[in-house]
Amino acid sequence: MMSQQKQLVELQQRTNQLLDNLISSHPNTAPYLKKAINYSLTQGGKRLRPLLTYATCLGLGGNLESADPAAIAIECIHTYSLIHDDLPAMDDDSLRRGQPTCHIAFDEATAILAGDALQALAFETLATHDWFPGCTLSSSARLKQVQVLAQAAGMNGMVAGQSIDLCSVGKQLSLEQLEKMHHCKTGALIKASIHLGALASNQVDETTWQQLGQFADAVGLAFQIQDDILDIESDTETLGKTQGADIANDKPTYPAIMGLSQAKQKAQQLTDEALAILKPLGQAAAPLRQLALLIIQRNH
Amino acid sequence: MMSQQKQLVELQQRTNQLLDNLISSHPNTAPYLKKAINYSLTQGGKRLRPLLTYATCLGLGGNLESADPAAIAIECIHTYSLIHDDLPAMDDDSLRRGQPTCHIAFDEATAILAGDALQALAFETLATHDWFPGCTLSSSARLKQVQVLAQAAGMNGMVAGQSIDLCSVGKQLSLEQLEKMHHCKTGALIKASIHLGALASNQVDETTWQQLGQFADAVGLAFQIQDDILDIESDTETLGKTQGADIANDKPTYPAIMGLSQAKQKAQQLTDEALAILKPLGQAAAPLRQLALLIIQRNH
Repeated sequence: MMSQQKQLVELQQRTNQLLDNLISSHPNTAPYLKKAINYSLTQGGKRLRPLLTYATCLGLGGNLESADPAAIAIECIHTYSLIHDDLPAMDDDSLRRGQPTCHIAFDEATAILAGDALQALAFETLATHDWFPGCTLSSSARLKQVQVLAQAAGMNGMVAGQSIDLCSVGKQLSLEQLEKMHHCKTGALIKASIHLGALASNQVDETTWQQLGQFADAVGLAFQIQDDILDIESDTETLGKTQGADIANDKPTYPAIMGLSQAKQKAQQLTDEALAILKPLGQAAAPLRQLALLIIQRNH
Repeated sequence: MMSQQKQLVELQQRTNQLLDNLISSHPNTAPYLKKAINYSLTQGGKRLRPLLTYATCLGLGGNLESADPAAIAIECIHTYSLIHDDLPAMDDDSLRRGQPTCHIAFDEATAILAGDALQALAFETLATHDWFPGCTLSSSARLKQVQVLAQAAGMNGMVAGQSIDLCSVGKQLSLEQLEKMHHCKTGALIKASIHLGALASNQVDETTWQQLGQFADAVGLAFQIQDDILDIESDTETLGKTQGADIANDKPTYPAIMGLSQAKQKAQQLTDEALAILKPLGQAAAPLRQLALLIIQRNH
């Protein structure tokens, strides 16, 4: 257990280092833009999605180097989505990861552009062999990664979820509608993190692909419910973002629909479900198991 | 000449048809978002970038089917950039292609999301073999297309250009600085259109690749100068966007820096240069030659 935690910290550091290298090695074409991108990418964060990518790849017998492009790409997409979600026209949030959001630290136009550039950077990262000489993945596996990531990020994935979310403010949602929204908004990218890791291992069969998808669905939903719970139970300092924002923005949440204690039960149940799905994968799934537990036990 | 013009119209129609199919065949996950995407993609427009892709591919002996994904992808990126450029935090424009801009017809959040989704859709298009069964390009060629497009669209290409543009408002720019800005802002995507077409032909050598790049640089700059000239000389109805917006926004332009007649001369000179670069390619470059002339002779 201890050594697994150490491994996760090492993978977080690996991610941070790679992100640093990625930005610092880029030409300084538009200095203000680059500063905003760097600011947003290096505000810390749990690097949960890269961890899922690495854990899946390692579990399936792949090597770290081959998971690097996907780990970086998924974090670029995640960071871009945070920047755009925080914009005044969207959630209008001024605090993220304990720091001023991008449009506060810079300006609104630059925040829009930084998000746009990070999305392009994600795909450039997957497609540029030279940036990761240790990655031995074929072009065909990398192209499949582009497809998986683009699908998860786009109009039937993450962006759809955000649109449904915005269209739902102040409305009564059924549990089913709420789940559809989160399935897109956070679930799609979490599933992509795991599937990108599977592709990076270069040895995933169809059954495992499906099982990993089911695991991801359960973990993704548990993650979101935990997010909703923390918005009520935690405080702004621990969260690094404004506590109580969901309620203030009149957003539909699990605790609002089903009550707080039911929501907690549901999160635990989904975690159990996720762990059960991993069983057939045996020891290979140990890092993923650890991550699933971290997601439910986190306090920010 | 006549048959070439007919061919261009056919290619425009092909682009429009493919864009229609692309959106209508997509699931209706987030209906309001999909409506906004559809609205923006089908407002007409000259489809100049897809035409450049097709023309390059055909000229080099490739087939139309293999150029389809790239033609669609580049138009998705172009459309997303227009939506984001028009946002209140950016150029704050209410008219585009003769219609209300996306954030006016819908709302600001939806416009941001529609742009985000279109960027993802561009890369999904390049990566999804099933969508274009007639395209026989290898995964390796398609991955290279992803790289070229992402690079052109991102923090050292189009988005960088937009950032430099925003940072330059109200400032005196040298001719060199203005050229760097346009080289990124419009030039990078025009060059990508042509290079994507070359990759789609699956038979481009290094020398031709370089020549096409030089041609693109000249045409891209001529295109931008013509844009600046039209902003002064045309009217809102013909342009389909607000005439005089550059001056109103205190934007640096070629006519402002070098005078109107010098700017016209420069555009003509760049077109001549572009045509000269095409010479060694002979008859293969006929469609591209035609397009270069259209770019300089256009009135909107």
